[in-house]
Amino acid sequence: MIIVKLGGGREINVEGVIKDLAELDQKFLILHGANAVRDEIAEKLGKPTRVVTSVSGYSSVFSDKDAIDAIMMGYSGIKNKRIVELCQRNGINAVGLSGIDGKLIQGERNKGIRVRKGEKVMILRDYSGKPKRVNKELLQLLLDHGYVPVICIPITDENNVAINSENDDIVNVLQEALRADTILSLIEAPGYLENRDDENSLIQTITAGELKAREDQVEGRMKRKMLALRKLIDNGAKTVVISDGRVEHPIKGALAGKGTTIK
Amino acid sequence: MIIVKLGGGREINVEGVIKDLAELDQKFLILHGANAVRDEIAEKLGKPTRVVTSVSGYSSVFSDKDAIDAIMMGYSGIKNKRIVELCQRNGINAVGLSGIDGKLIQGERNKGIRVRKGEKVMILRDYSGKPKRVNKELLQLLLDHGYVPVICIPITDENNVAINSENDDIVNVLQEALRADTILSLIEAPGYLENRDDENSLIQTITAGELKAREDQVEGRMKRKMLALRKLIDNGAKTVVISDGRVEHPIKGALAGKGTTIK
Repeated sequence: MIIVKLGGGREINVEGVIKDLAELDQKFLILHGANAVRDEIAEKLGKPTRVVTSVSGYSSVFSDKDAIDAIMMGYSGIKNKRIVELCQRNGINAVGLSGIDGKLIQGERNKGIRVRKGEKVMILRDYSGKPKRVNKELLQLLLDHGYVPVICIPITDENNVAINSENDDIVNVLQEALRADTILSLIEAPGYLENRDDENSLIQTITAGELKAREDQVEGRMKRKMLALRKLIDNGAKTVVISDGRVEHPIKGALAGKGTTIK
Repeated sequence: MIIVKLGGGREINVEGVIKDLAELDQKFLILHGANAVRDEIAEKLGKPTRVVTSVSGYSSVFSDKDAIDAIMMGYSGIKNKRIVELCQRNGINAVGLSGIDGKLIQGERNKGIRVRKGEKVMILRDYSGKPKRVNKELLQLLLDHGYVPVICIPITDENNVAINSENDDIVNVLQEALRADTILSLIEAPGYLENRDDENSLIQTITAGELKAREDQVEGRMKRKMLALRKLIDNGAKTVVISDGRVEHPIKGALAGKGTTIK
């Protein structure tokens, strides 16, 4: 079982990914982003994506009702369905699902973000939260009958409300539920870079132990990403590769170990 | 088995529909429209929905690539997911699917629309077509496991390309596949009106025979709607009710026979 995590940037070669996957003889599912198209829709609809920074320095999208609408249009709408169409055209019997369909991805809503406003600290509560569990029965039902789940946000909270969540965390609950041995994460870079502005600074291998050490050196979103990666290994994933999604054969590249391999 | 066909206008009381459905003790599925929200998105994105009129006088949405994008955002995106969320909040374990997911609704692409341009007649080909069959296995799989399918366009054509299609026709292939005995169609009117500008001209009962006679009196889209209704009866539907979707209890109203009943 392979989990393919597709970044939501414009430069990801989605068609190349799907063509590669069509030749694969293993079961897989796709978890995709769509931030670029979501931001474009939100902007054009006059409700641009807002980012807030917490007092602890962590930046995140502020997910009010308009932002969830934009996620539904951008992620569950155009991006998910165009990926499903590409899959079908390449012989992959895909079924697109958001985390709220059949309560596929169940989470807990965040209590609020502490932000500074002038001299004051206030709590902003939005529709976002952390994934906690998966409706494994539904996933397995589809996989057992030959369907390929193509999954995206929103997910559902403890009151069945649609919320935003991080794919870095969703991939963890999916891996936990399915015990996938391989995770391929396709991004708009050659892999994990020592210096994010230098594409030649690719780190080819990171051990789980090194990840822990690196976690302590970085902050905010990057720290969370590293923690999420380490959890994959802790939960039994044998191969985790962060690879370039912009190349002609992103999946073949990742399976050949191009990019950064976490061990 | 009940098929609920929800119109895509702004005035439909979707929350009332879902609350009514939550109290129902029969299996059902939902097929929904979203033309109002689709048109709004398309307009704001600078690609307004275009309507073309064929030489035979039939008006239809011209479904180019931008129009399919707008359908994915409006129908499969925001409308479908907000309905799924409402279902989940009311205890209905809904799974939202477009017709391309798992090739749920398979159709044939139209050959083209003959339109007049000045003196000439030209053929405009778009991404639209007629539904021909249903992936019954997938529908039954979900229904058998307690999930409620919430379905919308696009559907898939013979080359696995996403196309627009009419819900009036989709309801027919769904009914044929599932042998549903009851079809409730909720619209922004009290039912079928003798005079469409007079809400007091409600026709309470139409027989299949009368439908045939009326078909011969009307043209274009209305003719197709009547033909689609008659087919439902021909295919074994026992109760077909066209009822007001704007009231407090649209489903209870329809089940009580409010509106127009086709026999």
